Amino acid sequence: MNIIIAGGDGFCGWPTALYLSKQGHDVSIIDNMARRKWDVELHSNSITPIADLEDRVEKWKELTGREIRTYEGDLNHYDFLKQVLVKEKPDAFVHFAEQRSAPYSMIDREHAVFTQVNNVVGNLNVLYGIKEIVPDCHLIKLGTMGEYGTPNIPIEEGYIEIEHKGRKDTLPYPKQPGSFYHLSKVHDSHNIMFTCKVWGIRATDLNQGVVYGLETEETKMDPLLTNRLDYDGVFGTALNRFIIQSTIGHDLTVYGKGGQTRGFLNIRDTVRCIEIAAEHPADRGEFRVFNQFTEEFSVLDLANKVKKVAQEEGFNTDIAHLENPRVELEEHYFHAENTKLRELGLEPHLLTDEVIRDILKAVMNHKNRVIEENVLPGVSWK
Amino acid sequence: MNIIIAGGDGFCGWPTALYLSKQGHDVSIIDNMARRKWDVELHSNSITPIADLEDRVEKWKELTGREIRTYEGDLNHYDFLKQVLVKEKPDAFVHFAEQRSAPYSMIDREHAVFTQVNNVVGNLNVLYGIKEIVPDCHLIKLGTMGEYGTPNIPIEEGYIEIEHKGRKDTLPYPKQPGSFYHLSKVHDSHNIMFTCKVWGIRATDLNQGVVYGLETEETKMDPLLTNRLDYDGVFGTALNRFIIQSTIGHDLTVYGKGGQTRGFLNIRDTVRCIEIAAEHPADRGEFRVFNQFTEEFSVLDLANKVKKVAQEEGFNTDIAHLENPRVELEEHYFHAENTKLRELGLEPHLLTDEVIRDILKAVMNHKNRVIEENVLPGVSWK
Repeated sequence: MNIIIAGGDGFCGWPTALYLSKQGHDVSIIDNMARRKWDVELHSNSITPIADLEDRVEKWKELTGREIRTYEGDLNHYDFLKQVLVKEKPDAFVHFAEQRSAPYSMIDREHAVFTQVNNVVGNLNVLYGIKEIVPDCHLIKLGTMGEYGTPNIPIEEGYIEIEHKGRKDTLPYPKQPGSFYHLSKVHDSHNIMFTCKVWGIRATDLNQGVVYGLETEETKMDPLLTNRLDYDGVFGTALNRFIIQSTIGHDLTVYGKGGQTRGFLNIRDTVRCIEIAAEHPADRGEFRVFNQFTEEFSVLDLANKVKKVAQEEGFNTDIAHLENPRVELEEHYFHAENTKLRELGLEPHLLTDEVIRDILKAVMNHKNRVIEENVLPGVSWK
Repeated sequence: MNIIIAGGDGFCGWPTALYLSKQGHDVSIIDNMARRKWDVELHSNSITPIADLEDRVEKWKELTGREIRTYEGDLNHYDFLKQVLVKEKPDAFVHFAEQRSAPYSMIDREHAVFTQVNNVVGNLNVLYGIKEIVPDCHLIKLGTMGEYGTPNIPIEEGYIEIEHKGRKDTLPYPKQPGSFYHLSKVHDSHNIMFTCKVWGIRATDLNQGVVYGLETEETKMDPLLTNRLDYDGVFGTALNRFIIQSTIGHDLTVYGKGGQTRGFLNIRDTVRCIEIAAEHPADRGEFRVFNQFTEEFSVLDLANKVKKVAQEEGFNTDIAHLENPRVELEEHYFHAENTKLRELGLEPHLLTDEVIRDILKAVMNHKNRVIEENVLPGVSWK
């Protein structure tokens, strides 16, 4: 299968590209290197040193004999995108290439506008590109569980049957996103659903939970293949950030009460979910939604898990409850369905102490790279 | 009350500005003249000749002694918008200033991208402007009934109580918009709802139906105050377009079976609805949704009504069923709630034969201005 990974230089995209290449697919990467530039903008870094994309794919070829072609460019430049589609004629287009940080989108007006324009226009271009050049290509789009917010009823996978005043319909599940970034994903979902209907696009929207972990079997093969790992207040996500905080003797920074409950998954499951979606494409005209996470935890649950393992490893780790920079409920009902990917064969890697310990040990080798002032939240929702 | 009308040179905005000025409000207009430029782009025109905005407001001052200040500029230019907000310190910001044609948004990729960026960024700027400069200002935002699509259950006003698996919540009503334009309004609604929650913005989202009619008491006062009237396949809407077609001996162009049912209202009710919203502002942090229409008709109902009146007036009018350029259901359930504006005092102008006859007679004076090739649909959804 010819598969394009847009955003293939990023935290999820890079291990996905390697994994699919190893499974025998013909993989190419589109990336505009934006994520590396945001590190420069924010005076931030990946705790793991990461090689340039060209060095990464060269090493991959040396180790496995498999080629991953790379196209450096921006989905917002339609002529560039068209050229890649004409050349590759992909069977599947995996779209990770969006600004994916909620705090980044909340920095100020310019970052909010940038996030929505970048994500929405890039995605519109992909839809037009598929329509015009490869109408049978399967769009595999990364959404987020954050599109749903925290409703007081169970979250279904994209749609909900509603009975109302004696009538019935199955409708898109109502969305209550909590940042300009999450909103951009909701906009994308609506745009994609429409083009499935009017143009017959085939699409899978993967509403992904918070991803934790660092390595996959493939990225572990050589230091040049190492994945990036974020710990800062803007791009770092809960579990990974806590682990890194513990290694440098920093309190684990729980926002508010820590009762915020979310869906989580291991990066090893992310790459497998993409494979499952690609191998079971949506039908022409079908807009299919999978909730892509394996377990639900509250933020405080996670902090306690990390604290336990860190203490076993000899760290003197405590939990600090910071004033919440976000506007969100800190105690709420949360239950989301996630059966569709399992029915197609996903076997989850669950969050055990061993998994936390492995990440912690990998991180310890690089803890001298941590920029301490980046660990605290610097962006407020208000 | 100091009220800004953004898009105050347009079909809805201009009569609203005059009406609110006459009621004693201190009105100013923001407009970038985009609607006039799209006429040039599309080789189209208003069937009524319309004066320049400066001449319009000068005549209004001459006739009534009331000043309407004008600011020519674009909401996408934040510095411009900020200056206007600092100068006017509005109590209400009425936001009509978006690209409002579904067919225009479907012309091609560039028009789709333009529509979504223009509308979403302009609206984001208004939200940031209110937050930063006039946090107590009431945003009155024009949405569309088309945000809802045609679900098989009754359409509520913005929210719906859902009981699901033994639990209950009141959630945003699911949206199924039918063009990139309608999608842009859905994106706006989600963005506004979020800022009400996190910044305490007060907002009323008016999901307006299809507006028909031409004149209000104010625009009738002088030919220089005349409102624009669109009949072309891109900006013309159902009832007005049918009336103009009848006057030039053209068949009434019903798309497909004509069973498409929508909410409609007279332009005289549009201006009154804005007044009602302004005089009963939303609370701080409240995102309020009103369905702004007075009656429901199918497209074929409307064509038959126009045919009847036109024949009484001596026209030999027939109905033609064209191949539908849109992707939409031509027979479907449709029932929408619209009680909130009535509860606040709206007394609807209903669609009688007399109303159709009045529009028809006003149009006849200008029928030599009709560009016949613009009457047919030129934009396909596929």
